Amino acid sequence: MSMGGPSEHPALLSLLLAMAISFLCSAIPIDDIRNRLLVKEKKMQLGGQLVLRKQEMMANEKLMSLKEAEITDAMKTQKFPPSMHFFQAKKLIEESQVFSILKKMPKGAALHVHDFSILSGDWLVKNVTHRPHCHFCVTPRGTMQFKFAHPTPPTPKPTECSEWILLEKYRQQLQNVTDFEDRMLKNFTLMTENPEVVYANQDVVWSKFESIFFSISGLVHYAPVFKDYIFQGLQEFYQDNVFYLELRAMLFPVYELDGTVHSREWSVKTYKKVAYEFAKTHPGFVGIKIIYTDHRVKDVPLIAQSVKVAMELRAQFPKMVVGFDLVGREDTGRTLRDYQEALLIPTLQGMKLPYFFHAGETDWQGTSTDTNLLDALVLNSTRIGHGFALSKHPAVMEYFRKKDIPIEVCPISNQVLKLVSDLRNHPAAALMANGHPMVISSDDPGIFGSKGLSYDFYEAFMGIGGMKADLRTLKQLAINSIKYSALPHTDKMDFMQAWEEHWNNFIADLSERL
Amino acid sequence: MSMGGPSEHPALLSLLLAMAISFLCSAIPIDDIRNRLLVKEKKMQLGGQLVLRKQEMMANEKLMSLKEAEITDAMKTQKFPPSMHFFQAKKLIEESQVFSILKKMPKGAALHVHDFSILSGDWLVKNVTHRPHCHFCVTPRGTMQFKFAHPTPPTPKPTECSEWILLEKYRQQLQNVTDFEDRMLKNFTLMTENPEVVYANQDVVWSKFESIFFSISGLVHYAPVFKDYIFQGLQEFYQDNVFYLELRAMLFPVYELDGTVHSREWSVKTYKKVAYEFAKTHPGFVGIKIIYTDHRVKDVPLIAQSVKVAMELRAQFPKMVVGFDLVGREDTGRTLRDYQEALLIPTLQGMKLPYFFHAGETDWQGTSTDTNLLDALVLNSTRIGHGFALSKHPAVMEYFRKKDIPIEVCPISNQVLKLVSDLRNHPAAALMANGHPMVISSDDPGIFGSKGLSYDFYEAFMGIGGMKADLRTLKQLAINSIKYSALPHTDKMDFMQAWEEHWNNFIADLSERL
Repeated sequence: MSMGGPSEHPALLSLLLAMAISFLCSAIPIDDIRNRLLVKEKKMQLGGQLVLRKQEMMANEKLMSLKEAEITDAMKTQKFPPSMHFFQAKKLIEESQVFSILKKMPKGAALHVHDFSILSGDWLVKNVTHRPHCHFCVTPRGTMQFKFAHPTPPTPKPTECSEWILLEKYRQQLQNVTDFEDRMLKNFTLMTENPEVVYANQDVVWSKFESIFFSISGLVHYAPVFKDYIFQGLQEFYQDNVFYLELRAMLFPVYELDGTVHSREWSVKTYKKVAYEFAKTHPGFVGIKIIYTDHRVKDVPLIAQSVKVAMELRAQFPKMVVGFDLVGREDTGRTLRDYQEALLIPTLQGMKLPYFFHAGETDWQGTSTDTNLLDALVLNSTRIGHGFALSKHPAVMEYFRKKDIPIEVCPISNQVLKLVSDLRNHPAAALMANGHPMVISSDDPGIFGSKGLSYDFYEAFMGIGGMKADLRTLKQLAINSIKYSALPHTDKMDFMQAWEEHWNNFIADLSERL
Repeated sequence: MSMGGPSEHPALLSLLLAMAISFLCSAIPIDDIRNRLLVKEKKMQLGGQLVLRKQEMMANEKLMSLKEAEITDAMKTQKFPPSMHFFQAKKLIEESQVFSILKKMPKGAALHVHDFSILSGDWLVKNVTHRPHCHFCVTPRGTMQFKFAHPTPPTPKPTECSEWILLEKYRQQLQNVTDFEDRMLKNFTLMTENPEVVYANQDVVWSKFESIFFSISGLVHYAPVFKDYIFQGLQEFYQDNVFYLELRAMLFPVYELDGTVHSREWSVKTYKKVAYEFAKTHPGFVGIKIIYTDHRVKDVPLIAQSVKVAMELRAQFPKMVVGFDLVGREDTGRTLRDYQEALLIPTLQGMKLPYFFHAGETDWQGTSTDTNLLDALVLNSTRIGHGFALSKHPAVMEYFRKKDIPIEVCPISNQVLKLVSDLRNHPAAALMANGHPMVISSDDPGIFGSKGLSYDFYEAFMGIGGMKADLRTLKQLAINSIKYSALPHTDKMDFMQAWEEHWNNFIADLSERL
């Protein structure tokens, strides 16, 4: 009679086999290989080289447990803000605990923002249009234009616009002011409830986008508003814990009530003055710099002229004007190659004019637009605006990495302007995973309905960085914004030191939370 | 009186300056740098190392002029098929001249396709459901199930399904057969006019996707249909100039009219027999191989069992069964890590069982699903199914590149299953630009409404490759499909030689076109 060995007891046999496998697995260095890979990729990620202090590690644990809970929840509900259009995600983002932490985080600097889109459109409606002497007219396509003047704006009125109407008087006659102000606000932002329907393609969204600048121009270029706009804009960023901005500015003529107009020099001086005033009442505020910009629809000779203006402004205001860029839609505008002659003027004159080119803000790989990335390299750009297409240019990407030339990633802008819908597919995800030099910025928060940098940091941290991007990534992004700024070396060091103090306070707060 | 030197003639001054700049530019090696970069990136692109013959260069010129015209046109109309959902793009693709060339191109092999989705659903409706003894029932959710039997299917009937109805009889009573057949077809494909509305998220589309396999199961596992399905499927690929397939097959029991069921061995033998028969009447056809698969919802012991089955099948049919894989939705299924013990069984037994793991078919970077890519590496996978998330894993990506382990890119599948909407943002774009090893496949063409490989080649060539991907990229993709196949070395060489002949004919035809 058998004693009943394992072969007669299938369950026992299975158990023994499982134990044997388990033993052998631990003998095989498979877990070692796996762990080494995990550690290696952790180190390759943006910020992966940073070593956290004990308190930072505690703060990180709290942050990451919130992040993991929010992502895990989103995987269940299939409602993940970075996968949704920002206009629909905004409310969800505002409910996020991670977002509330990001708002408090000292984010350093905003290196890619445009002059008249740093401030919520609300302020224009609630404040600016309520000022005396504000006139408006409406184009046949429904776009409003504005002009401050007394008693009435000078003729000729803008082509294709109705007669000028005094806003103060018009408002008095209205039965439903809210409705009118809502319609006005729609002239100032891209926000809408059904962005996929309203903005069917890039042509439509860009057309509306550019009409907004057209619409607000008469408001923001009125001298008193101009000053207040800058102040309020700085305020919105300051409240979001952003203490330094580099504004890409067109420096269009600013006008007074009597119709007299100011020079570009006046505008630069005003930026300087307002920033100085702002700093007085806002401790820790570092300042602003101007990147002079022109529009890429213009002919080469006009851009050549602008390059010279940039050189002159830089000579005149070396602490304020730090360089030059071209703005407007890359896909339909002229390429850097088209402008090569104009852009080589400083080099040929033996002068230095730093460039901060928009390049690769396109989905059209392999086209002349897309080649802007190569030309930004060739023309020695200091940073790259967007660089959305960079991952499709391995040679250029390698060069920028070696030369430590960062891309300025603006997630919400790229989504709203229809380059990518689900931000988990933003090409910066691969670059962030590989520690490519980058900063996060917000491009035109006022127009996209965001504020400061926090919304874009949220998208970058939750959507582009994936589950494992942690406090190191955030810290590196903040550090990068200072490191890659156009501040002179000593100012940079000062800023970095001041930022570190803010950071340590932030970490102390965060590590002491529940 | 002055002679009117340049300083008094602004126009002349401008001209002279322009000439001087133009001269200086040519003196500066800026164009050299630019060209070197362009050439470098051209060579880095997939296929960039291939040197084309004169006739290939002529063919390439024709192809590229069509491609450029189509893309340039799309930039104007803002209607670019790879940016649209495939269900809406399909008709446009079929109008494309580039597509008509891709259909004729000998594409080599399909290395990532699943057993019962290689053939258009139409065939099931028009052929299979018209066969005698076909019964159907309907679940409360409207999903149809089928069973061939005579006189009636054996009890018990499937749970939650209506009584069995004889299809032949039912059809006779119908006033509108077309309508019924349309509804039936909807059980067999994901095609719909409003995919964005109907498939609001991945849960919804995957639920429908899996219900299709459930629905067709009773049709395709009926022995006579099983044989015909394989034959017709091979036919659809053959007509699309694809001469070899590696099928990921579940090998579910195939049944006869009297209810008897066949073993897995019978199924493998039948695959072999049908392929043999097919080859007799289809010159150049190379054959099929089976990658045995199981579903990643199952418990570890069941998968351990399946691994053993795979080993046995491979031992029994070394020329037919080439390896093992796990299928089903990665995001909700078990991870490779979960199955580690089971998947190490061959190694521990000193046996070789090649793996062809699905890995990284996810947008959820940094999650346990996403880590499948690391485990596919650790577990020594021969190829990577999808590898959609690979670009977010720089260390794993580097390793695969060094070891020449390709990803199997299935563009339409990734879009329809909602990983990415605009295929220009498919992460393979960066990998293709960098010459990463890859093949293009179609995953489940029958269910997505495509056929063979041409639709996916179109998306890859036009959308993922960008404007500059040319005949070299296409040729490399075809070569890769042979190179990375599981064919034995000599068979591979034979296939490559035969393919080259087809390729040369294709080139001759193309270069002689208008």
